[in-house]
This record gives sequence, structure tokens and C-alpha cells, in this order.
Amino acid sequence: MFNFAVISESKETRARAGVMKTSHGVVETPVFMPVGTLASVKSLSPEEIAEAGANIILGNTYHLYLRPGCDVINLFSGLHGFMNWSGPILTDSGGFQAFSLAKLSKITEEGYTFQSHIDGSSHILTPEKAVEIQLSLGSDIMMCLDQCIKYPAEKKEAGSAADLTTEWAGRCKKAWQEKGESKNALFGIVQGGMYKDLREKSARDLVKMEFSGYALGGLSVGEPVEIMLDIADYALPCLPGEKPKYVMGVGTPENLVELVALGADMFDCVLPTRNARNGQMFTGRGTINICNSRFKYDTKPVEEGCLCYTCRNYSGAYLRHLFMAKEILAYRLNTIHNVYYYTKLMRDMRAAILNDAFEVFRKEFYRKRHEA
Amino acid sequence: MFNFAVISESKETRARAGVMKTSHGVVETPVFMPVGTLASVKSLSPEEIAEAGANIILGNTYHLYLRPGCDVINLFSGLHGFMNWSGPILTDSGGFQAFSLAKLSKITEEGYTFQSHIDGSSHILTPEKAVEIQLSLGSDIMMCLDQCIKYPAEKKEAGSAADLTTEWAGRCKKAWQEKGESKNALFGIVQGGMYKDLREKSARDLVKMEFSGYALGGLSVGEPVEIMLDIADYALPCLPGEKPKYVMGVGTPENLVELVALGADMFDCVLPTRNARNGQMFTGRGTINICNSRFKYDTKPVEEGCLCYTCRNYSGAYLRHLFMAKEILAYRLNTIHNVYYYTKLMRDMRAAILNDAFEVFRKEFYRKRHEA
Repeated sequence: MFNFAVISESKETRARAGVMKTSHGVVETPVFMPVGTLASVKSLSPEEIAEAGANIILGNTYHLYLRPGCDVINLFSGLHGFMNWSGPILTDSGGFQAFSLAKLSKITEEGYTFQSHIDGSSHILTPEKAVEIQLSLGSDIMMCLDQCIKYPAEKKEAGSAADLTTEWAGRCKKAWQEKGESKNALFGIVQGGMYKDLREKSARDLVKMEFSGYALGGLSVGEPVEIMLDIADYALPCLPGEKPKYVMGVGTPENLVELVALGADMFDCVLPTRNARNGQMFTGRGTINICNSRFKYDTKPVEEGCLCYTCRNYSGAYLRHLFMAKEILAYRLNTIHNVYYYTKLMRDMRAAILNDAFEVFRKEFYRKRHEA
Repeated sequence: MFNFAVISESKETRARAGVMKTSHGVVETPVFMPVGTLASVKSLSPEEIAEAGANIILGNTYHLYLRPGCDVINLFSGLHGFMNWSGPILTDSGGFQAFSLAKLSKITEEGYTFQSHIDGSSHILTPEKAVEIQLSLGSDIMMCLDQCIKYPAEKKEAGSAADLTTEWAGRCKKAWQEKGESKNALFGIVQGGMYKDLREKSARDLVKMEFSGYALGGLSVGEPVEIMLDIADYALPCLPGEKPKYVMGVGTPENLVELVALGADMFDCVLPTRNARNGQMFTGRGTINICNSRFKYDTKPVEEGCLCYTCRNYSGAYLRHLFMAKEILAYRLNTIHNVYYYTKLMRDMRAAILNDAFEVFRKEFYRKRHEA
């Protein structure tokens, strides 16, 4: 089962608060989904993911298809059982990794042909196959296979990629209807590069096909942030207000605030988790690097008043020590804080929307973030 | 405060069950202490250490003195506050690492002079300094500085090292009495290589000085296991029955069972933690490697019936997948299981001693361990 309802809209911006129901639980939007590439949100246990405030995670179809493979995951009736996560899971289609990570990747009308980045084995990823794999993963929200393009891209290339994405979306929907419509949601992905008219056409074409929700793909691929926001500003209103709107692979805390203001409901990004492993931690008063010598003697938590497990129990000095010593616990404690920071940011935005105080929130957010 | 009492002795072997009281809690013996080298039992949070059944851990004086340094740890009034561990801590003296890990290490009557293995900085570690550092770490059980030797060693070298260790023990005790006797325990370390008469002399000399407990150092340094057990068999009875007896740096589950039978009460070793990070897991039915392809489709836990967090929640297939994918969570889940296995082994031995059934336990232990 899947449904979504907007329960409150900001009067000053397009920000909105919603409720999304899935077979594995309710998700309040706007929401940030930590990335669990290989059936693990790197360094965290499922209990820690939940304690850090996340109640929906993202899995990567490309990675899981190659490793451990659907034959293994099928034994557990899907990803939930395999990784011991009982909350909702969204899976991407695998297209982005088949495009960016695999070797000898080629795109034809049929789909992607590529060689595994792990062992060089040959594979073909069609729209039907992308749906089949995601159904086997048991994801609550599946994504249509899309054709990704490099940035910058000529308009002609962007246009034909968007058209092929639309055609594939139709094939995905057909495969989904034949096999699993009742249990899983299927989202369409808007492409069109940095061309507004192409984005609009892509959105209109997909909306006609009626998906459970819609995503903006191909953003945050190297373009300046102003362009990313400009495209989102233009494309998000082309999507139906009653459906969830997901901006894929974005972004910084500032990006999320701006995109929520533009009407986006869902986000995923490796920033909080990957950067945690590089020592970068997000706080309300700016982004810090735990290597900095100012933390050497810091007996306070990295973010005073933060209620995450890390800040409640450990000092900046201890986190710096663990990180400098390359202790495994460092990556976990940093990740817990960053995921908590991201999920709290979303909860705070939601509360502001419900109180019709989004602009007050936004001003305060920027004022504090620049204090560090 | 520190005291120890033997509460039960096996009739068929020298195995014994005891209770050790420290300022940070009670420890039941025989006990295994996981190694927390750098203020972290690698990959585990303090809550996980406790949940895995460990209630005393070991910290490495050499490592902590170099990194983060006593000036940092002093801000937290010791290691407990720094790493958020509220249970008892035993610290080694730093001698073994100054001998084996540091660069340009030299031993004089005064102590060790060495260069840090991290930044090449010069240091001197005297018996007085070893006590001072350990007091600053706030360890519940401190170890006297000892002179370590290579294996094999000539008798002359082993003899003079044992004599110097005894002399240093006297200086450690003096420093301890002057500064912290009331709060921390201080253990003497028996040396003497693989020479029984030297071991006996070392033990007798130390016992005269009256320490809170006694350790056998310089075992499991490359000698055949039969020699290790033979030396322990000879040396352990040279130590007073009313004091805790600690065999340092040992060992495999089989080693622990044999040494408990010989009257040892305390152990530490990196095996369960280090090997976990290499994919090796200890089970009642033998030691396994999680890489093995037989786990690829294994929906059962690695040890059926095991009550550790890992076995209660994850399959062999998931653990293998995480390990093959080099996911950080792999190291943690494997470590949790191994530490649980070791602490449960100790609890089982203790229960057998209390029921005067140690030989029954030992037979059953070997029968099962060979099943894998």
C-alpha cells in the first residue's frame, strides 16, 4: 500500500508538510533518507538509524543486484529481512550507477548494457529488469529506470535522454502493473538537463502516465547551485500537488532548506554519511572538521544542546582523538551525529510549516549556520 | 578500593572462581578483558562492550600516553570519563609496546628510552613514570613496568631481565604508595622467559613485596603452546592463592580453558577483536571464517542459539555480504559476537567451577569445538 497527503502548506513559500503511508510504516514529509548503498547505512546498525531519527532509508539497486545478488536477498524475502530494517525503503533504479560507475556502459533503447565494476561480468539493465530487481528487494518505493547524462550536456542530448526516460517509464509502469502494483509505489523521474522546456515536457509526459510520486533526477551533477535551484523552482510546480516530489541526490543543509521552500518533499544524499567518515560534521552553527586542533582539548560535545547519542555521550576531544587514530568508532559516532542533524533539520522545517513560520525558520537557520 | 576473594575451587583441577572489587564495580573471575588500546575497544561503543558481557576492559598506557596524551585525558579526570566507560579498567605499563612497537627502543636501569612510532618524538618511560601515567588514566588496576625479552632468549638475558623487572616493581610500588595506593590496585609482573627456576625466583621476589595481584608476562610470545602451558603450570602455584593471577596477552579459547584449569583468573588478548576484523569468528563448534562461500546463502546466524546481538539479529549470509563488501558494520557485528563468545566462555567456566564440574565442562568444550 502507498498513499500520500499534504496536510499543511506554507503561505509565504511553496513549502509543504505531508504524510506518506507505506507497507512498512508512515513517513512524515519533508523527509531526508540516509543512503544505505549495500544493505547498510555505512557504520550504523538499524537501531542507530532509527535512533538518529531516520525512518526511511535508500538502497541502491545496482549495488545490491551485483552484491550480494537477488538470489541471496530472495532467501530473506527482500532487503528488510536481509538487513534487519523494518521501516520503509526506497530503492533507486540502478540507472545512475550503471551510467557512472560501471565499466563499458552503453545505452540503447533496450536499456543499459554494462560490466560490473567489481568483477567485470556483463549485465543488461532494462526498465523491466529494474522493476523486477526492485520488487525482489521488496522496496516500498521503486524508481523508474532513467537515462542519466553528463553535465554540461547539449540540448539535443538532454532532450533525447528525457524522451527515452519517458519511454522507459512507460515500460516500468507496465512491468509494475503486471507484477506488484498493490504493494509497492513506483515513482517517475523527470529528466531534461538544465533546460526548462525539456524539464517541463518530461514532467508533463510522466504525469500523464500517473505515477505514485515524481522525482527530479539529474540535479546536483556539477552545475552551480543557482542553476540547480532555478531548475527545481521551474520543474517542481509542473508536478501534481497531491503527489510526493522527490529531489534525488541533493544536498547540503542549505540546499534542503531552499528546495523545501520550492515544494520538494523527499531527499537523499551521501553527504551526511560520507562526510562523517571524512571528519566533517554538520551543526546548526556551521559545518566543522573534527581534525581541527581547536577540538583537541574540547570537553564539550561538538554541538552543544544536540540530543544525538554522540553529543549526549562524547566530547569533541574524544571524537577528534578517535578520528586522528583512525578508530572505527569515529566513523560511527560522526555518522550518528550527521544523520541526526539532517533528520532534525527536516523535522524542524516540518514544524515550521505546520506553524506557518517557514520564513522565520529559514532566516534563523541562515543566521545560526554562519556563526561557526 | 580493591579486593579479591576466591569463592570456590575446583577439586579436580586448580580452576577457581573469585570476586574482585574495584572502585568501578565488581568483576567475577575467571574473566576475559577485551583490549581497548586507544580508548576504544575497536568498533564497539561502551554500551555494546557491556551488552557483549564484558565488564572490565584493558587500556594501553603506551598508546594513550602518546595519543591523545595525558594532558587531554586529565581534562576528563581519566580514561573512564574520556571514553564514557563506567566499568573497571586495567592498564598495562607500556613496557611491552615501548619494547616491541617504538623505534630506537633502549633499556637502561633507569627505564625505556624510545621514539614514538607515530611522530618519532623522544620519550623515557621509567617505573615511576609508568605509575604516574596510569594514575592519570585513573585505571582501577595498574601494572608494574617490566622488561620484556624476545623469544627465544638465553638464560642469562632472561635472568637479568627478570631481576630488572623486580627492581622496577619495587620502584613502582614506592611511587604507587606515595601517590595513589588507596584508589588503584597495582599488580607485579613475573618474568623469567621459559626458565622455570627464573620464573620461580621472579615470583618469590615479587610476592615478598606484596602486590594487589600478580601477572605472568612474557608468555605467548612465539613459544609452542605446550611450553607456554608448562611455564604457567609451574609459575602460577608460586603465586599466593588469595591474590588474583593474571596471564597477560593470552589467548585462544583452548588456551583460556587450560590456563583456568591451572589456576589463572584474568586474561586479555586481541584475538577476539582483531580476528573479528579479519573475518574470523569463534563459536562453540569451532572457529570459522565468514568469507567462506558456505555462508553465502546461510539464513541462520553464525552460531545457532547464541544470544549475542549479532546472532540474534543477523544471518551468516548478511555478515558475509558486509564483510566481502568491506562495510564498517561488518567489523562491529563480528567483534560483538567474538567478545560475547569469549565472555560467555568465561562465565560458563565459572559456573562449572561453582558446580564443581570443571572437567565435565572441559571435555564437552573440546568435543564441541572439534565439530565444525
